[in-house]
Amino acid sequence: MADKRYVYAFKDAYGLGKELLGGKGAGLAEMTHINIPIPQGFTITTEACTLYYQNSKKLPDYLVKEIFENVHKIEKDSGKTFGGDTDPLLVSVRSGARVSMPGMMDTILNLGLNDKTVAALVKKTGNERFAYDCYRRFILMFTNIAKGHPRDDMDKMLDELKEKNGYKLDTEVTAEQLKDLVKEYKAYYKKTFGEEFPTDPYDQLIEAVTAVFRSWDNPRANVYRKMNNIPYEWGTAVNVQSMVFGNMGESSGTGVAFSRSPSTGEAKVFAEYLPNAQGEDVVAGIRTPLHIEELEKRMPDVYKQFIETIKGMEHHYRDMQDMEFTVEEGKLYFLQTRNGKRTAAAALKIACDLVDEGLITPEEAVCRVEPNALDSLLHPSFDPAELKQLKPIGVGLPASPGAGTGHLSFDAADAKARHANGEKVVLVRAETSPEDIEGMVSSEGILTKRGGMTSHAAVVARGMGKCCVAGCSDAIIDEENKTLELNGVIYHENDTISLDGSTGYVYAGSVKTVDPELTGYFGRIMKWADEFRDLKVRANADTPKDAIQAAKFGAQGIGLCRTEHMFFEKDRIFHMRKMILSDNVEYREAALNELLPYQRDDFYKLYMAMDGKNVNVRLLDPPLHEFLPQEEDKIEELANALHMSAQQVKDRISYLHEFNPMMGHRGCRLDVSYPEIGRMQARAIIEAALKAQKDMGKPVTPEIMIPLTLDVKEFRFVKSIITEEADKVIKESGEKMTYKVGTMIEIPRAALLSGEIGKEAAFYSFGTNDLTQMTFGFSRDDAGKFLPDYYKNKILEQDPFATVDQKGVGKLIKMAVADGREVNPDLHIGVCGEHGGEPVSVEFFHRAGLDYVSCSPFRVPVARLAAAQAAIKYPRKK
Amino acid sequence: MADKRYVYAFKDAYGLGKELLGGKGAGLAEMTHINIPIPQGFTITTEACTLYYQNSKKLPDYLVKEIFENVHKIEKDSGKTFGGDTDPLLVSVRSGARVSMPGMMDTILNLGLNDKTVAALVKKTGNERFAYDCYRRFILMFTNIAKGHPRDDMDKMLDELKEKNGYKLDTEVTAEQLKDLVKEYKAYYKKTFGEEFPTDPYDQLIEAVTAVFRSWDNPRANVYRKMNNIPYEWGTAVNVQSMVFGNMGESSGTGVAFSRSPSTGEAKVFAEYLPNAQGEDVVAGIRTPLHIEELEKRMPDVYKQFIETIKGMEHHYRDMQDMEFTVEEGKLYFLQTRNGKRTAAAALKIACDLVDEGLITPEEAVCRVEPNALDSLLHPSFDPAELKQLKPIGVGLPASPGAGTGHLSFDAADAKARHANGEKVVLVRAETSPEDIEGMVSSEGILTKRGGMTSHAAVVARGMGKCCVAGCSDAIIDEENKTLELNGVIYHENDTISLDGSTGYVYAGSVKTVDPELTGYFGRIMKWADEFRDLKVRANADTPKDAIQAAKFGAQGIGLCRTEHMFFEKDRIFHMRKMILSDNVEYREAALNELLPYQRDDFYKLYMAMDGKNVNVRLLDPPLHEFLPQEEDKIEELANALHMSAQQVKDRISYLHEFNPMMGHRGCRLDVSYPEIGRMQARAIIEAALKAQKDMGKPVTPEIMIPLTLDVKEFRFVKSIITEEADKVIKESGEKMTYKVGTMIEIPRAALLSGEIGKEAAFYSFGTNDLTQMTFGFSRDDAGKFLPDYYKNKILEQDPFATVDQKGVGKLIKMAVADGREVNPDLHIGVCGEHGGEPVSVEFFHRAGLDYVSCSPFRVPVARLAAAQAAIKYPRKK
Repeated sequence: MADKRYVYAFKDAYGLGKELLGGKGAGLAEMTHINIPIPQGFTITTEACTLYYQNSKKLPDYLVKEIFENVHKIEKDSGKTFGGDTDPLLVSVRSGARVSMPGMMDTILNLGLNDKTVAALVKKTGNERFAYDCYRRFILMFTNIAKGHPRDDMDKMLDELKEKNGYKLDTEVTAEQLKDLVKEYKAYYKKTFGEEFPTDPYDQLIEAVTAVFRSWDNPRANVYRKMNNIPYEWGTAVNVQSMVFGNMGESSGTGVAFSRSPSTGEAKVFAEYLPNAQGEDVVAGIRTPLHIEELEKRMPDVYKQFIETIKGMEHHYRDMQDMEFTVEEGKLYFLQTRNGKRTAAAALKIACDLVDEGLITPEEAVCRVEPNALDSLLHPSFDPAELKQLKPIGVGLPASPGAGTGHLSFDAADAKARHANGEKVVLVRAETSPEDIEGMVSSEGILTKRGGMTSHAAVVARGMGKCCVAGCSDAIIDEENKTLELNGVIYHENDTISLDGSTGYVYAGSVKTVDPELTGYFGRIMKWADEFRDLKVRANADTPKDAIQAAKFGAQGIGLCRTEHMFFEKDRIFHMRKMILSDNVEYREAALNELLPYQRDDFYKLYMAMDGKNVNVRLLDPPLHEFLPQEEDKIEELANALHMSAQQVKDRISYLHEFNPMMGHRGCRLDVSYPEIGRMQARAIIEAALKAQKDMGKPVTPEIMIPLTLDVKEFRFVKSIITEEADKVIKESGEKMTYKVGTMIEIPRAALLSGEIGKEAAFYSFGTNDLTQMTFGFSRDDAGKFLPDYYKNKILEQDPFATVDQKGVGKLIKMAVADGREVNPDLHIGVCGEHGGEPVSVEFFHRAGLDYVSCSPFRVPVARLAAAQAAIKYPRKK
Repeated sequence: MADKRYVYAFKDAYGLGKELLGGKGAGLAEMTHINIPIPQGFTITTEACTLYYQNSKKLPDYLVKEIFENVHKIEKDSGKTFGGDTDPLLVSVRSGARVSMPGMMDTILNLGLNDKTVAALVKKTGNERFAYDCYRRFILMFTNIAKGHPRDDMDKMLDELKEKNGYKLDTEVTAEQLKDLVKEYKAYYKKTFGEEFPTDPYDQLIEAVTAVFRSWDNPRANVYRKMNNIPYEWGTAVNVQSMVFGNMGESSGTGVAFSRSPSTGEAKVFAEYLPNAQGEDVVAGIRTPLHIEELEKRMPDVYKQFIETIKGMEHHYRDMQDMEFTVEEGKLYFLQTRNGKRTAAAALKIACDLVDEGLITPEEAVCRVEPNALDSLLHPSFDPAELKQLKPIGVGLPASPGAGTGHLSFDAADAKARHANGEKVVLVRAETSPEDIEGMVSSEGILTKRGGMTSHAAVVARGMGKCCVAGCSDAIIDEENKTLELNGVIYHENDTISLDGSTGYVYAGSVKTVDPELTGYFGRIMKWADEFRDLKVRANADTPKDAIQAAKFGAQGIGLCRTEHMFFEKDRIFHMRKMILSDNVEYREAALNELLPYQRDDFYKLYMAMDGKNVNVRLLDPPLHEFLPQEEDKIEELANALHMSAQQVKDRISYLHEFNPMMGHRGCRLDVSYPEIGRMQARAIIEAALKAQKDMGKPVTPEIMIPLTLDVKEFRFVKSIITEEADKVIKESGEKMTYKVGTMIEIPRAALLSGEIGKEAAFYSFGTNDLTQMTFGFSRDDAGKFLPDYYKNKILEQDPFATVDQKGVGKLIKMAVADGREVNPDLHIGVCGEHGGEPVSVEFFHRAGLDYVSCSPFRVPVARLAAAQAAIKYPRKK
C-alpha cells in the first residue's frame, strides 16, 4: 500500500515544486493558481516514475487506484464521464520532466475514445468529421506512442486516401472517409498486435501513463539528457488533462506563442495559429501555421484576451514565456506555459530588456543566459559585403541564426559519419524528427522544407546554437537519391551550400565570414558578469594570434602556454630531433642552443600580445618520441646530420618507443633526465620577458609552470634548474624582474601530497585532462571505444573529459586546494584543463575556491558568464 | 656559532642512541659503559653530517673547534700528544651510520703520522719496521679514501717491491724498504695532487672526517641504501679512536670474531686471527687469516680473556655479536662490536637457541630474523644423492650457504649485463670489493680465490642470501682472458659450474637440486610468527602447481587467481581469439562456450588443491588485444575459421590497438562491453566450486573479484552479471552454496569513492601495482628508463613498484580502508599487488588495518614473518 500521495489535481498542487510535479505540472498548477484559463486535470508525480522503475516497470495497484480517483474528480468537476455515452470525458496524457525536453517525450491526445464515446461526441458536438478525426488521431498516437509501433504505415493510409481523392489538405477528408480510416486503423492494430484496440478508457489511460514513464528511458531521451546534463534519476511526471479541441471547426484552432521573439528577443508577442487543428499539427510541422494576425482577424475578442493573458503571464513569471494554446469554439485555453527557449542573441536582449523594464535584477539577467549558448555569437557570420553580391538560391524561415556552410547530407547517420571524418556538412531534410538529433549535432546547419519557427528542427537548432533555415518550401528534396533541387538546379551530396540562419537565405557555394561584434547586449551582460564573478578567466594560448583572440574575448592573461607546439614548425623540428637523438649532454645543449632563439622570440611575441597581463608558460610536456619522424627520408636526413646510420636512428627511435606514453617519460621527468632542456626554456622565457618589459615599458612577471609533478623533491629539483638559470639571466641583464615558479597538479599523487608541494610552489594549475586520465585509469585516446558502453549501461552519464568528475577528480582537487592553502595561504590556484571553459565544471571550480580558470580563447566568454552565475548562486564568504 | 653539541667522548655518550651516534658510536659508548677494553676516543654525531651537507659540504669552524677540544681530552687521558715528538697520539677515523653498512663506508687508520711522529714512534716502540709500515699504510689510505684517488698505483709499488725481492708476504718487507716506499708514496702524492702530503695531524684529521661525510654520498653507499631501505637523510657519524696496533710484532695481532657461527648459528665462538697485522688485512682478504686456535696457542691468557669478554658481550647485548679485536703487545682491545650479520639458517638457529637459553622471548626471536633472508632457505639445494656421485673440481670456504649454478663471469659489469639478458652466471673473482656489489646481486653465486669467512665477498653474500665459496686458493683466475683453472682444467665464460655454499665444494656442470626442508628451526620460528601476526597471508597462484607450493609454504588461501593466464594455452587461445574477433554476441557466446570447460576444470583443480581454503578468482583483466596473434600464419588460420579475410582480421587487430593499453579497455570494462565474458567466468567458477564441494565433502565459498572498478554503479552492473549467472547455476544444481563478490581497488577513483563502493562489495583487494601506476602516472613498462634518474637525483629512494609508496599510494589505501569500513564494518580487506610479500610494505599494510596480504608462493613465509614482526612492533587494539 502507498503511504504517500503520487497524484495531485492541478488546483491542489500549487507550490509543490518542479522536482515533484515536473516543469509542465508545476506550470499547470501555477497557471491555475493565477487564474489562467486551462483545461483542468491532474499530475502523476516524478516519484511515481521512480516507483514504476523500482516496481519492475509496472504501476502498483495502489497507484492505479489513485489515478482513477483523480479521473473521478475531473468527472465530478466537469460533469463529463470517462467512457460515458452522453458527454464523454476525453483527456490528453503528456510527459513533463523537471526541465523541458522538447520533442523527446511523448504525448497522447483524445484518450477516452472508443466506438461508444465517439458516437456520443458526434451527438454532443453535431460534428461527425471532428469526432472521427479525433478518434483516428487517437488510434494513431496510441499505436505509435503507447505501443511503440512506427506510424509510417498509418500515415501512408491517410496519404493514399488523400491522393486517391485528389486532396491536398487533411481537412478536405470527409467524415465518412475518416470513419473508414478508423476501421482500417483498428484492423491494422489488430493485425499488428494480435488483439483488439483497447476499448476501456481506463485501460487506455494506464497504458498511456506507462508509455510516458517508459519513454523516459528511450534512446533519444538518453541522448538529450547526456547533451544537457540531466540526471537519469530525476524521472518524469505525467499530466492528465481534459481535452479541448482546436479541430472543432473554423471557430476553433490551436497555436504556439512566445511572449517575445525567441530568435531576436524583440519585445512583442510572437505567435502562430492554425485554424481547425490539433497541437501536434503545429509542432510536427505537418502543416505550416499562419501568422497570429489570422486569429485577430477571425476572433478579435479572443485575440485581445490572448495578448493580455500572455502579458500577464510574462509579468508573473518574469521571463519570456513559450505557450501552447487552443481555441475551442471561440473559447481560449492555454495548455501550458514555460520559460521559452531562445537563441543566445535573444537571451541577451531579453535579459537586458527585462532589467530595463524593472522586472529583473542584473544578477538575474546574468543568470538568464545559458553560457554555452554564447558560443554561437562568438563565431563568424557571413560577410554582409559579400552577401550583397550574391543571389540566394532559396529562402526559408530564419529559424536559428548563424552561418553554416558544408556539403549536403540527406540523413542523420550520414551526417554523423561524414562529420566524424572531418567533413563539414549541412543536413537537408523534408522535416526533422527526434531521430535526427545526432545528425543535427554533427552538421554546420540544418535546412528543412516543411515546418515553422516552432518546428522540431527550429526548436532543437536554437537549443544547440546551430544555424537553421526551416520551411524552405521551394526545395525539392529527394532523400533517396540524395539530391536537393532549388529553382531547377539540382545539388548533389558533394556540392556546397551556405545557410544564413539570421535571414533564411540559402546560397550556393561557400560565403566569406566576418568576426562577431562583442558589444551591445553581449557587452552589457558580460560587463555585469565581470562585476559579479570571483574567478578570473585566462586563456590557453600558444601563439600570438590565439593570445590576441583571447584578449579580445576578455581573457585576463594566459593560463597555459604549451611550449611543445613551438617545436613542430618546419625549421625547428629538425633541431628538436637532433637534441632528442643526441646521446650526450654537449650535443643536446648544442641543439638546444639552436632552438633557444625561436623559443625566446615566441615568448616575446606572446608577452607583447598580452600587453603586461600574466603569461603562464609550461615547460616541455610530451614524451620526446612524439617529435621523431617515421618517414624514411626524414630519418635518412637526420642520420646524415648526426653522422649516424639510418639504422642507428631507427634503433634510437625504437628505444624511445613507450608502451603507455601517457604515463611515460614526459613532463618534468624530461627535466629530471635532461636538465639542459628546462635550463634552455627558463633562459628563453626570462630573456623574452626582459626584452618585452623594456619594449613595453611595463613590468612583466613571468610564470613558469612545471608539468606532471608528483613529489616535492622532484618539484624542488626542477625548480632549482629554473631558478638557477633565471637568476643568472636576470643578473646578466642588470635589469630587475620577479618571476614565479609553480606546478601543474595533474598526477593524483601531487594532489594527495599538496600539503608538501604547496610549501614550495607559487601557484597550482590543475591539469584536469591528465588528472582525469589517471584518476579513472582512462586513456583519453582509447576510452572512446568503451565509454559508449558506460553511457548505455548508465554507469557514467557524462564524458568525464568534457565535464569534470566532481566525485572522484573533484575530491582530489578539493583536498589539494585545502592542503595547499593550509601550508601556503598565498598559493594562487587555477585550472587549465579543457574543463576550464565548461559551465558545470566552472561552477565546481568556483565552489572549490579556485582563483582562476583557463580555457581556449573561444570559451573565455562562456567561462566569464559561467563564473558569474556560479558566484551569484554560491556567494563566497568575503 | 653552534648552540648544540656535535661531539661526544665515548665515555660521555652512553644512552644517547644510534640515531645520534650511529651504530658504531653507540656501541663504543656502551662497551665503555660495561667495561669492555676499548681504545678511547669520541664520536662526531650524525647531526654533524647533516650540518656538513647543509653547510655546502664544509665543516663549520665551531665544529672543527669542538673536534679539536675532544682530541685534547684524549691527549689528556692517554698522556700522548697529537703530533707529539715523544709519545705521539695516533687515531683511526671511521664512519658509523645508524645501521651497519659493511664495506660501504671508509676507514682511515694511523692518522697523526708524519716524518716527525713516525720518528717518535720508532723511538718509543723500538720497532722501525712497524712504524714505517703504519706510515705507508696511512699515506695509502689517506690518498685513497680522504682524497678519493684509486689505490692501484700504490699497491703496484708494494707488489713490485716484493717481486723484485722475491717476497711472498707483506711481512717480509724490511724497515728500510718501507722507508723507501714511504718516500715513493709521498712523491706519488705530490705528483698526483700538486702539493705535499699534509704534515699537520689536525689538517689530516679534518680532511679525514670530511672524507667520511663525503663518502655517505658515494655511489656504492647509495646502491647499498637503496637495496636496504636506508633513508639518505640519516647521515653517518664519525668515530675518532686512539690507535692500537696489531702489527707491532709477533705478540700483536688482529682479528674478527663472532660469538656464534654466522653461517650455521652453531653456539660457539667463531673467530679468525692474523698475527702482526692491521684490521684491513683481514677484511680486505689480502692475507688469509688463521684459526683462532693460533691465539690460544700463542697467548693462552689473552685467549681466555677474549672468550670471556665475548660471552659477556653476547649476554649483555642478548644477540650474536660481530667484533673486531686487536692484541697490542699482549694486551687485548676490542675495537667494535655489533649484532652480527648472519645467514638465514643461522638467524633461525640463533634465535631459537637464545630463547632456549632464556636470553630472549619468542617475540624477540621472531624479530631477530630478517624476513627477506628466508628467501634463501626456500629455494632448492643440491640433491645429496647426486652430490655423492660427483667429484668436486675444487673446494673453498663455505662462506654463504645455498646452491648456485651458472656460466662463468669474471667481472661485475659483465655479470650484470648477462643477468639482464636472462643468463644465469656465477661471479668468479680473485677477491671482491665494494665495486662488485651489483655484479654479486646479478649472479647465482660467488667464487673467490682469496679471503676468509669474513672477507668482503663472504659478508656481503651472506647479507644477500647468495651462495658464496670464498678462499678457493687452488683456483687460478685469469680475469683478463676470462678463464678459471682448477686442477689443470681450464673453464671458459660459457662453461657452467655449480657452487655449494654450505660445503664449499665447486662442481663442473649443473647439479640437480632438491626442495628445502621447512621444519626444524624454520618451523619453530614460523609457528611463533603465525601465533603473533594479525594479517592473514594468502598466495597469488593461477595453477594447481603454484597453489600446492603456496599451501606448503603456509598460504591460508589464494588471494589472487588471474584467469587470463588460463587462456594462453595452446588449445584455448584459438577460441579466445575467435571470441575477441567476433563482432556479435552470439558468436562471442559460442566461442566462450568452448572455453567454459577449460576454465571450469582449471578452477576445479585449484579448489581441490586448496582443500577448502578460500580461493579468490579475478575476472579477466588484460585488454583483449594482448591475446591476438601477430604472425601471418596464425592470422590466416584465424581468418579461415572465422570466414573472414586475413585483411579483415588484421583490420580488427589494428582497430583493437590501444595507445595506452594500461588505461584502456581492460578489467571490468570488458564485462561492461561484453557481459557474456563475465557470465561465462561466473558459471565456470560456480560449477567448479559445486563439483569440488561435492568431491571434497566440505563447503567451498567462492570469492569472485572484479578488476579495475572505478564507480559503484559499474561495480553493481558487473556484480549483477555475476550474481544472476551464479544464482542460476546454483539453482540448476539443486545444491547449496554461498559466494562473495568483491573488487580490486587499483584505480585511484575507486579508493576515493570507497565510501560508496564499500556498501556493495564483500571484500576489497588493493592492486597496488596498478594503483601505483595510476597514482604516480608511471607506466611500469616504461618507467625503467627514467627511474634511475630519479634515484640519481635523490627524488625517489625506492622503486615504488618494489616497496609501497606510503605517502601517496598509502594515503589512498588508508582513506579507502577507513571509508569502506565506515559503511561496511564487515568489509574484508587485503592486498594482492606484488608489495604483499615485501616486508616494509607488509608492515604498512598491518598498520593500515588490512585483514590479509597475498603474494607469490615463495614470498609467503617472508610475508608471514614480516606480518608477525609488524604485529609485535605495532600491536593492534583488540
